[in-house]
Amino acid sequence: MSVSAIVAAAGQGRRMGDLGNKQLLLLGGKPVLARTLEVFESSRLIDEVVLLAPEELVDTYRSVLVDKYGFQKVRRIVPGGLERQDSVYKGLEAVDPKADLVLVHDGARPLVTVDLIRRVVDAALIDGAAGAAVPVKDTVKRVGPDLTILETPPRDSLWLMQTPQVFSCRLLFKAYQEAVAAGLRATDDSMLVERLGVPVRVVPGSYENIKITTPGDLAQAEAILAKREKWSGNGSDWDGL
Amino acid sequence: MSVSAIVAAAGQGRRMGDLGNKQLLLLGGKPVLARTLEVFESSRLIDEVVLLAPEELVDTYRSVLVDKYGFQKVRRIVPGGLERQDSVYKGLEAVDPKADLVLVHDGARPLVTVDLIRRVVDAALIDGAAGAAVPVKDTVKRVGPDLTILETPPRDSLWLMQTPQVFSCRLLFKAYQEAVAAGLRATDDSMLVERLGVPVRVVPGSYENIKITTPGDLAQAEAILAKREKWSGNGSDWDGL
Repeated sequence: MSVSAIVAAAGQGRRMGDLGNKQLLLLGGKPVLARTLEVFESSRLIDEVVLLAPEELVDTYRSVLVDKYGFQKVRRIVPGGLERQDSVYKGLEAVDPKADLVLVHDGARPLVTVDLIRRVVDAALIDGAAGAAVPVKDTVKRVGPDLTILETPPRDSLWLMQTPQVFSCRLLFKAYQEAVAAGLRATDDSMLVERLGVPVRVVPGSYENIKITTPGDLAQAEAILAKREKWSGNGSDWDGL
Repeated sequence: MSVSAIVAAAGQGRRMGDLGNKQLLLLGGKPVLARTLEVFESSRLIDEVVLLAPEELVDTYRSVLVDKYGFQKVRRIVPGGLERQDSVYKGLEAVDPKADLVLVHDGARPLVTVDLIRRVVDAALIDGAAGAAVPVKDTVKRVGPDLTILETPPRDSLWLMQTPQVFSCRLLFKAYQEAVAAGLRATDDSMLVERLGVPVRVVPGSYENIKITTPGDLAQAEAILAKREKWSGNGSDWDGL
C-alpha cells in the first residue's frame, strides 16, 4: 500500500499583508512550510510528497526548504494554478501513478501530527475517503442576502473541515475530472468526492491543527508549539479538542 | 433611548486547564475582563453594565476589576446560574427596567470595539434585534451520527455568530420567558429570539473579535492587541475581515 501526499502551498497568502508569503514566515525559528514538510517526512506511512508552489517561488522552495532541510520525500515541486482546486489537480497529475491513496494537506497547517496523518490514512483505507475535522464551537447561522438570519442549524451536527484529507487515488482523480467537466468549484476536496455520492468519513482532528492565514494565527501557532515543546513526549492530538 | 449591557463572565473556563479563570488572565498586562469592561465604559451608548460572575468570584470581580479600574457603569455584579442561558436570564432580571435595549456580550471577547458596539446598537434600533457575526472561512460539513458527511452547506450563506447581540428589552424578556416555559436550551441569545419568528439582523463584525477559551487564543489576542497599539488611531474593525 503506497500513499502520496500533495502539500498545497501555492496560494498568495494575501491576508498576511506586508509580511510576505505565509509559508515562509518563521514559526519557532523555521519556515511554516518546513514545519509542515517535516511532519510528512517523519511519517512512515507517506511514500512521496508533491509540493505545490506559486510559480515564482518554485526555486525558492527548493533551495530554502527542500535542499536546506534535506526533505527526501519531496519528489516534485509543481507550480500551482489560478486557485487551490486548479493547483491540487496539477498535483494529482504529478503523483506516482502507482499510488493507492492520495493525501491532500494545506501547507499552512504546520501543527498537523504524525498521529493525525495515521488516523486519516487508516480511515481512508477502510472507507476510501476520509478527512480531519473538528466540531464547530461557535453558533453558526444561515443568513440571507439581506443579512437577516434564516436559521440556526443544530450545532451538534456541524463540523469544520480541515486537512489532511485522504482518498483512493482513482476516486479523487474521477472526482476532479467530473468537477472540471461540470465547471464546478469547491471549497475542499471532500466536496468533489461527496458529489459522486461516495460517503466521506470524518476523523476527529484537533483544534490545534490551525490554518495560518493572519499574523494572529501565527502567534497562536507559536503558543501551541511552545506548549507542545514543554509537554513533549505526550504526543496526543486530543488535548485541544 | 437607554441601553443596558449584560457582560457574561460567569463560566468556569475549564478549557484553560491549570491557568484558572480565563477572565482574570492577563492580556497586555490587564485582566481579560477588565479589557472588555473598559470598552463598555468608554462607549457613550452604554448606560449601565450588569456583570455576571461565578458565585465564588463576585467579591473578587468587585475588588480586582470594578473598584481597581473604577468602572462607573458596572452597577450590579450578579452571580450566574448553571449555564450561560441561566446566567443571562438572571442578568436580564437585574437590568434597569426602563432600559429600551439590552446588549449581551461575552466577557471573554475583550477585543470588541466601541465602533462595533455602535453598529450593532444602531441595527437593533432599526430592527429590534441584531448581532455581530463574521462569514465562515472554513468549509462546514453536516455530519451524521456515524461520522460520515451528509452535506456541505453552501459556505456563502454561513456566518459565525459573535457578540455583542442587542435586542429590544421587552423582546429578549419574552424570548427568555418562552424558552424557560418550553424547556428550550440555545447556544446563543439570538436563537431564542429567532424562535419567536422575529428576524434578527446580522452586523458584520471582525475576525479579531475572538472569544478567549484556550491559551492559544490568548496568544492570538496578545498579537492582535500589539498590532492595534502599533497602528492606534486606525480604529477600523474591518482590517481583519
